[in-house]
Amino acid sequence: MIKVGVVGGTGYTGVELLRLIVGHPQAELLLITSRSEEGKAVADMYPNLRGTVDMRFSLPDNDGLADCDLVFFATPNAVAMEQVPELLQQGVRVIDLSADFRLRDAKEWSRWYGATHACPELLEQAVYGLPEVNRAAIKEAKVVANPGCYPTAVQLGFLPLLQQKLVNASSLIADVKSGVSGAGRGANVGSLLCEASESFKAYAVSGHRHLPEIRQGLKQAASTDVALTFVPHLTPMIRGIHATLYSDLSVDQVDLQALYEDCYANEPFVDVLPQGSHPETRSVKGSNYCRIAVHRPQQGNRVVVLSVIDNLVKGAAGQAVQNMNIMFGLPENLGLEAIALMP
Amino acid sequence: MIKVGVVGGTGYTGVELLRLIVGHPQAELLLITSRSEEGKAVADMYPNLRGTVDMRFSLPDNDGLADCDLVFFATPNAVAMEQVPELLQQGVRVIDLSADFRLRDAKEWSRWYGATHACPELLEQAVYGLPEVNRAAIKEAKVVANPGCYPTAVQLGFLPLLQQKLVNASSLIADVKSGVSGAGRGANVGSLLCEASESFKAYAVSGHRHLPEIRQGLKQAASTDVALTFVPHLTPMIRGIHATLYSDLSVDQVDLQALYEDCYANEPFVDVLPQGSHPETRSVKGSNYCRIAVHRPQQGNRVVVLSVIDNLVKGAAGQAVQNMNIMFGLPENLGLEAIALMP
Amino acid sequence: MIKVGVVGGTGYTGVELLRLIVGHPQAELLLITSRSEEGKAVADMYPNLRGTVDMRFSLPDNDGLADCDLVFFATPNAVAMEQVPELLQQGVRVIDLSADFRLRDAKEWSRWYGATHACPELLEQAVYGLPEVNRAAIKEAKVVANPGCYPTAVQLGFLPLLQQKLVNASSLIADVKSGVSGAGRGANVGSLLCEASESFKAYAVSGHRHLPEIRQGLKQAASTDVALTFVPHLTPMIRGIHATLYSDLSVDQVDLQALYEDCYANEPFVDVLPQGSHPETRSVKGSNYCRIAVHRPQQGNRVVVLSVIDNLVKGAAGQAVQNMNIMFGLPENLGLEAIALMP
Amino acid sequence: MIKVGVVGGTGYTGVELLRLIVGHPQAELLLITSRSEEGKAVADMYPNLRGTVDMRFSLPDNDGLADCDLVFFATPNAVAMEQVPELLQQGVRVIDLSADFRLRDAKEWSRWYGATHACPELLEQAVYGLPEVNRAAIKEAKVVANPGCYPTAVQLGFLPLLQQKLVNASSLIADVKSGVSGAGRGANVGSLLCEASESFKAYAVSGHRHLPEIRQGLKQAASTDVALTFVPHLTPMIRGIHATLYSDLSVDQVDLQALYEDCYANEPFVDVLPQGSHPETRSVKGSNYCRIAVHRPQQGNRVVVLSVIDNLVKGAAGQAVQNMNIMFGLPENLGLEAIALMP
Repeated sequence: MIKVGVVGGTGYTGVELLRLIVGHPQAELLLITSRSEEGKAVADMYPNLRGTVDMRFSLPDNDGLADCDLVFFATPNAVAMEQVPELLQQGVRVIDLSADFRLRDAKEWSRWYGATHACPELLEQAVYGLPEVNRAAIKEAKVVANPGCYPTAVQLGFLPLLQQKLVNASSLIADVKSGVSGAGRGANVGSLLCEASESFKAYAVSGHRHLPEIRQGLKQAASTDVALTFVPHLTPMIRGIHATLYSDLSVDQVDLQALYEDCYANEPFVDVLPQGSHPETRSVKGSNYCRIAVHRPQQGNRVVVLSVIDNLVKGAAGQAVQNMNIMFGLPENLGLEAIALMP
Repeated sequence: MIKVGVVGGTGYTGVELLRLIVGHPQAELLLITSRSEEGKAVADMYPNLRGTVDMRFSLPDNDGLADCDLVFFATPNAVAMEQVPELLQQGVRVIDLSADFRLRDAKEWSRWYGATHACPELLEQAVYGLPEVNRAAIKEAKVVANPGCYPTAVQLGFLPLLQQKLVNASSLIADVKSGVSGAGRGANVGSLLCEASESFKAYAVSGHRHLPEIRQGLKQAASTDVALTFVPHLTPMIRGIHATLYSDLSVDQVDLQALYEDCYANEPFVDVLPQGSHPETRSVKGSNYCRIAVHRPQQGNRVVVLSVIDNLVKGAAGQAVQNMNIMFGLPENLGLEAIALMP
Repeated sequence: MIKVGVVGGTGYTGVELLRLIVGHPQAELLLITSRSEEGKAVADMYPNLRGTVDMRFSLPDNDGLADCDLVFFATPNAVAMEQVPELLQQGVRVIDLSADFRLRDAKEWSRWYGATHACPELLEQAVYGLPEVNRAAIKEAKVVANPGCYPTAVQLGFLPLLQQKLVNASSLIADVKSGVSGAGRGANVGSLLCEASESFKAYAVSGHRHLPEIRQGLKQAASTDVALTFVPHLTPMIRGIHATLYSDLSVDQVDLQALYEDCYANEPFVDVLPQGSHPETRSVKGSNYCRIAVHRPQQGNRVVVLSVIDNLVKGAAGQAVQNMNIMFGLPENLGLEAIALMP
Repeated sequence: MIKVGVVGGTGYTGVELLRLIVGHPQAELLLITSRSEEGKAVADMYPNLRGTVDMRFSLPDNDGLADCDLVFFATPNAVAMEQVPELLQQGVRVIDLSADFRLRDAKEWSRWYGATHACPELLEQAVYGLPEVNRAAIKEAKVVANPGCYPTAVQLGFLPLLQQKLVNASSLIADVKSGVSGAGRGANVGSLLCEASESFKAYAVSGHRHLPEIRQGLKQAASTDVALTFVPHLTPMIRGIHATLYSDLSVDQVDLQALYEDCYANEPFVDVLPQGSHPETRSVKGSNYCRIAVHRPQQGNRVVVLSVIDNLVKGAAGQAVQNMNIMFGLPENLGLEAIALMP
């Protein structure tokens, strides 16, 4: 049994992590911390956990974290980087679901996150936790930077095209739509039901924090610089991300369907749909799958890729558990077999 | 392994049953039938099952049903009663999720369902599958009549009061709210997103088919006649039933909280919430729990019970699997441990 | 033209009031105040008003209020009572959409609102602004206490029965469902889309502030004490209240349909539906109508009344404009003719 | 008073047209036809119209249409083209909200709509009813082809760039999201609340009927061929279209904000938002506005335009009334002043 701790378990990512860990046959939850909710029963906050999680939130500076084999950080940005160095010294491995270790360049990180990085020396050793790209490195990693939700959907959609250098990397577009849970459980007016339901809007068109993260991943895949226009949108639903990806073919003859099927043939959580399909976000609600379809409208030179995930599962907690399984030599889908809830 | 067949698996109850059977460690799905979708891959209709269910829909008169240990009927009303007698003769046990075997009185059944019952002789031997009431009989049953969604939520809420004769049985009210999935997957204008979202309404105030079923169950619990006003409402959400139950105390002194906690102390799927609680339907979304709270506003003589279930799980497919577990001597919660998806 | 001021126009009631006043042919908006948003353009906060409202929020202590013929308070509770006395002295008439002047008994008010009333001497002269009951008094009123949303729906549904003494006044039940806008624009976790959509729950079963207000109105109609169980519920939609009202007939022979049709025959905003109907909240979305249906299930002695309003219109801003029309001798439906948006 | 008839008034476009005509001070509704609902009271189907529309649906071959000054067709495609020629001979003017007269090329129309056009000779004389482009011609038109919902949002967003030849016309992308009412009131499984809510998907990526209509309009604006990738998406809400438009600048120096503001300075229903804005679809819910924002992310050469409309108003019935106003010399915003419902 892997002894597991969760730091900052009160947000949506945290409760989703609890749901998955509690159902995982090889993980044992030792403690869950929250400064603001210390002493409160977890199930009082999340009644879906009644009868399953008897634990209370404890303070994050609890010594108990050092007794863990693995600690997940489900904290706001700029928290994990303060605590991770000490945990590593104590031999604890870490999966950080926040953005602290996602960018390799500390200056770039500072530009987008508005703070000085507390442990830039760890950025090189941290492994970006996209299993489809970094499986071998994740296995050995001390610190895994769990990818953002948008970056997961966008990268999995673009990778086959870029790795094979089939499209113009200087003219990529990611038009991405997210459910409201992506904005977290914070009490913001914009996330109220009366503001966000029955409406649709783009936001952060001038620049979103996930842009440099996506760019870094695509650049590595393409082995060249990329130019990406990334426009996120707020969609009136709880869970789900739908990425609509546009790129221009630089070759004439290519079997796109075969390309995608081959690329992901051995991936347990990437499902390439039959030709002509349109994936729905609900087909992955609560599950760790990414479902992808690739189109070439009117046989022109533009490729349209559709990629859907559950932002809280493959886009956060599920991918974190997938990374845990890899790190500890378990079957990659252990504890992640749940089928999406439909309808 | 229990060899299982599903007749009529294209509706919401059917796909939910598939989700649960596929994840059940002691059940093996042999076949799933549908007249209208014969030959179609199940996963083409329900993409959440891609990668898990490779089966195609077959014709319902397939001999394969006779090879099953257990057949679930997830058919419209008045279908199961035509096929069940033959299956019983072949030694197959049956759980019927439709209404065909729920009422003991064939005449009453005809009045509400507008047809002559095809096998009234089976009504006596059929067991009403509410485990909290009929566990012992379910264990031995050849035919289990799986309760309706409204009847499950209402009976579990009222039973402790009626069994202990604490309230006036001639003045009960069940004001019940259901998500739209209760209306099924049929293409009715009233179930369109544009008709049913952003709106709320009552329906069938003059009389709903679940009324005689609830009355039958409450009467048995109370050991006396009951008078019930039952008003169902359509709620703009996919899943969930919330029953608000009103009754008048016929005694002065009673510890209602203790009554409910004691009554359900050993029930694996009934969760009595702490005093003063208000259960949310989302706390059971996708799970087999019924969560209940009992109130006595301003310490008057009126009792208000709040009871929530997922209409497709404890109100249909989950309760059916619970009954299967009981019938086949398995742990009652096997395959039903999934935690509600929240948010 | 009536010169109008609005105090506290940033909430949902406030913006709805603006929408109606701006479209009213006999009202001229002089100013709109908000402490927190002073100087901000109203249309920046509510982009639906772009091109129609050029005004900015001003401070509430602005002298401009004294120049108005009528001031609406759309403030939180316990604010209007501090400012109203001075305005009255300056000859300004007031419609208060908060709860400050709704209860005649200052002690009762204190019990439910947790503060000492600032001007109890005004409670007697304030007129409860339910036009269907108090039209004549509203016409002459200096201060109109605009009814709460739940109280409007419940009273209009119960009044015909109580005024004619046809039901047992000591055993009334109001099971009422509200859209989330009833909770206001405050940034509360419970009102987030991810918390309140795809779920349904009761709240405040032990006692809600609208209970004494409803009781006061029903008592007056019945000319006797009433006992009422009032259970509010949160419904996953933006606008709308649906009241399901239960009472027991104390007479045998009565034509309920005729009773309701006669009672409301001359009311411009109460629409009694044909026998057997079930009103939908969306049929009044954005409109000032209350639509009512009356049922007697299975011809028993229990009456079930269904009453729907838009909580922000007939339950707040629309009723306030209706009261303004009455106070200033205008046609009662002036500026209120808009048809509900459907779908 | 303009004497108005509506053919095919049972769909969402039809009821929206009724809502607007009934509130229009210069229009008088003479009749509304429907084959399937003949004899039924309009208000029985659309209870929001109770108290306002007393009319019943009549048969479409009713002579009454010839008595009208103007007939709106809110019929399925391929119906209007059968009836329009006769009406024109009788001196009746026509606004067709279906697609029958939108494409100038009858062969192109046949390819996309799968039928032979019944009156190709009228295609040249029919005026495409986008007032911002064709105002003068609409004024004189006998037949106005009211634009589709997607084409309205996309064209208004792209026009300033194309008219000024500022972008590469051979590389346009329109990623467009529509509420479910765009699919009409037909009882399709895909439009059920349980299928379309809590989910998001693209559809018709290989080619949508609105593609040739948009292309025709953009080509005219650009005075050159255009290549457009058009991807429509289904969004879990009732009303609203959000177009996210991508194009590549072919010039370096341009003040995009000024360009858009100047272009639409005199348009009553196009609202260019301040720099940096993100329009929400709810800001136009129920109103005839199109709200637009223009962005140039990171000052690159890609332009991102955001354009929102209510698909049933500016995308259908509202634009039809705007066209009526133009055709009959009325103020263009008469009967269209209603403010969007928010929240």
